[in-house]
Amino acid sequence: MLQPGERLDYLIREDLRIIQNDAVFSFSTDALLLGHFTEVRKRDRILDMCAGNGVIPLLLSDKGNNVITGVEIQPQLVNMAVRSVQYNHLEDRITMVEMDINALIQAYSPAQFDLITCNPPYFKANQTNQHQLEAHKIARHEIYCTLDDCLRVSNHLLKEGGRVVMVHRAERMLDLFESMRHYRIEPKRLHMIFSKPGKAAQTIVVEGRKGGRQGLDIAPPFYIYDEQGDYTPEMKEIYYG
Amino acid sequence: MLQPGERLDYLIREDLRIIQNDAVFSFSTDALLLGHFTEVRKRDRILDMCAGNGVIPLLLSDKGNNVITGVEIQPQLVNMAVRSVQYNHLEDRITMVEMDINALIQAYSPAQFDLITCNPPYFKANQTNQHQLEAHKIARHEIYCTLDDCLRVSNHLLKEGGRVVMVHRAERMLDLFESMRHYRIEPKRLHMIFSKPGKAAQTIVVEGRKGGRQGLDIAPPFYIYDEQGDYTPEMKEIYYG
Repeated sequence: MLQPGERLDYLIREDLRIIQNDAVFSFSTDALLLGHFTEVRKRDRILDMCAGNGVIPLLLSDKGNNVITGVEIQPQLVNMAVRSVQYNHLEDRITMVEMDINALIQAYSPAQFDLITCNPPYFKANQTNQHQLEAHKIARHEIYCTLDDCLRVSNHLLKEGGRVVMVHRAERMLDLFESMRHYRIEPKRLHMIFSKPGKAAQTIVVEGRKGGRQGLDIAPPFYIYDEQGDYTPEMKEIYYG
Repeated sequence: MLQPGERLDYLIREDLRIIQNDAVFSFSTDALLLGHFTEVRKRDRILDMCAGNGVIPLLLSDKGNNVITGVEIQPQLVNMAVRSVQYNHLEDRITMVEMDINALIQAYSPAQFDLITCNPPYFKANQTNQHQLEAHKIARHEIYCTLDDCLRVSNHLLKEGGRVVMVHRAERMLDLFESMRHYRIEPKRLHMIFSKPGKAAQTIVVEGRKGGRQGLDIAPPFYIYDEQGDYTPEMKEIYYG
């Protein structure tokens, strides 16, 4: 089942397997945080944009019996994700679609989803120090998909009152908020992730609601490491359950 | 020197006295936090908007030898502030102006200040449960001064590269960011203040820079109380030095 360069990793808490390939794509801690902070409700129809190797659909599949669609532009990643879904016998609940997210507006009629998750490319396309590898570059830089694209498409696909949960770099919080409001997705809850106590935040997870009332809730801070450099109990919970 | 209902309070850390009157206005913890998180540079010409009884000018006077202007719309508060300034012999460095901040655009030519601080009214004017007392109502509700006003006026008064530091309720963070960007004041640093560990943030302090580059720094969280309900060492430092 594995192709050259691939390995089968273990999502311990969810008791699921996932195909990874460091030369192409492996999920990051941020994906685990996005999965963790995404609340799944019973009847949510879920879409994961920029799905990569399918880590978010796999993580969310453990939170209920919801039907989940993952959209990814890179054929090699879709192929990895499809094989992981098969390996875990989740074909009846997780569908992977190979598509540019901008094409979703043509492909799907409006208001078909209740919950959209997204771990988008973090860096602007013109930024220097782009990663050498093409696959990594596409996943990390806004080449095919900008933050604005993610929210514009979400506005189209979400029903009124539906939710978007996105993870992003802390320094781009303003851009994220601006795009969300521009597309009528009101930021409702902000999680800040600190690598360790005393350091600036590096990552944020934001939940927005389409047509939601104004008023932001700032959750207690989340720390990945404690002052000794060990995982915090909260982070261990995410990894090991 | 004191008028009926007034008392002389002590700013311990700064070794300064301040006239307060609970029936009219007394400063809050938020004012102390704004003072604490405002970095004063040697040549900064400082303006404090919505100055109330002058607590921010007094706190900042201890951070250098800068000249500070405080603007307040309520005559009674300006009167209290002026007497506090006199009591502390700071007349040569702190000037209080009785003015609607919206009139500052006419009264001052552009780019005259390097640093603007503001602890504005927090609540929208149409919000219910407005405080009974007129003076409190003006200080707490956007009757004469909206968030948008604060940033519009700041844009006019700040030199390019100058800074605004504002304190506000956490739930209005989005409105604050939106107004800042609208008036070319880029949010650069965010402090979140948590009442105690495990609770949502209630207050934020944001520093913006006129014409600044995009990129927000999220400071480590600040806690007022520890889990036992005692002041944290950081909060004691603000109170007692």
